[in-house]
Amino acid sequence: MPHIALNSDEPGIRGLLRFRPETGRPLSDLAEVLLRGPSTLTRGERELIAAYVSALNDCQYCSSSHSACAAAQLPGGMAVVEHVRADAGDAPVSAKLKALLGIASAVRQSGLKVSAADVAAARVVGATDLEIHDTVLIAAAFCMFNRYVDGLATIAPQDPALYAAGAQRLVMEGYLALPAEPKGEG
Amino acid sequence: MPHIALNSDEPGIRGLLRFRPETGRPLSDLAEVLLRGPSTLTRGERELIAAYVSALNDCQYCSSSHSACAAAQLPGGMAVVEHVRADAGDAPVSAKLKALLGIASAVRQSGLKVSAADVAAARVVGATDLEIHDTVLIAAAFCMFNRYVDGLATIAPQDPALYAAGAQRLVMEGYLALPAEPKGEG
Repeated sequence: MPHIALNSDEPGIRGLLRFRPETGRPLSDLAEVLLRGPSTLTRGERELIAAYVSALNDCQYCSSSHSACAAAQLPGGMAVVEHVRADAGDAPVSAKLKALLGIASAVRQSGLKVSAADVAAARVVGATDLEIHDTVLIAAAFCMFNRYVDGLATIAPQDPALYAAGAQRLVMEGYLALPAEPKGEG
Repeated sequence: MPHIALNSDEPGIRGLLRFRPETGRPLSDLAEVLLRGPSTLTRGERELIAAYVSALNDCQYCSSSHSACAAAQLPGGMAVVEHVRADAGDAPVSAKLKALLGIASAVRQSGLKVSAADVAAARVVGATDLEIHDTVLIAAAFCMFNRYVDGLATIAPQDPALYAAGAQRLVMEGYLALPAEPKGEG
């Protein structure tokens, strides 16, 4: 049961965006530009970074939701997502994405854990400054979203089919549609 | 030296907001509504939560900046801020603010560390659901800002007078003015 009265049955971040639209709006805007805005990283790659960080943070709602979003938009689907979550260093993703996942993992621990060597290694395999920037901010943002969702003890459904259906909606409609959706469609 | 070429001399978050205005806009919007928007927590109290979390995360830029903002808007000024940073449980702040600082400290570790007992204790001393919500989100947001600022190794000036001057500007103009300010005024 959530720690506060959210006045809806919406799970995870959805209930929070509805509870406090004043903060929900910039949070949705941030997710939309980071995960779906123009970028040389694909939407699937960016969702994978979000899923990976959320899994490392043990956030069931966010890791399930963004794993489903990554699987829906990444060649290789859920098998690749699960491989990254189990052992990112050994997963069948590009050397660049592997290096960016390494930076994301460091950010998750602390910004101070990201070394010049981590960044240089990502650059050697083709990462640009903007890709490094966005990776750091995606990882940092999910350290926020994960804490927000779990810090208020929001509901995290168990059924993977619910997350897959939610991912289909997010792939079609994006993150800006979320706060305005009618109650109970979660 | 920052890990990426920011193309300005702006320190901390200021250089990042300028480097990537597409993400800077929602980040500034979030800071403005959380720290300065309508609330039953004073601006000084909210800045104190931000400063406390940033200090626990060892983020020099954010902890210095938000300590200065809290000191400028809180009865007791910097002495109270320093007392909270050194020993929040013993600091001369209200029982409600002390309980909210405790929740913020739990969020900093992990959202999963916030217990029903923590929330009940805050409610007993007068915290509302909205105040608990905003405290969790302020703490979570600074776990993002701190990682963003340090994960890209942005510059953190040493001189407290610079942070005090920056706080005066923030108190007057707020967070939405930041990305548009001319280069070199940092």
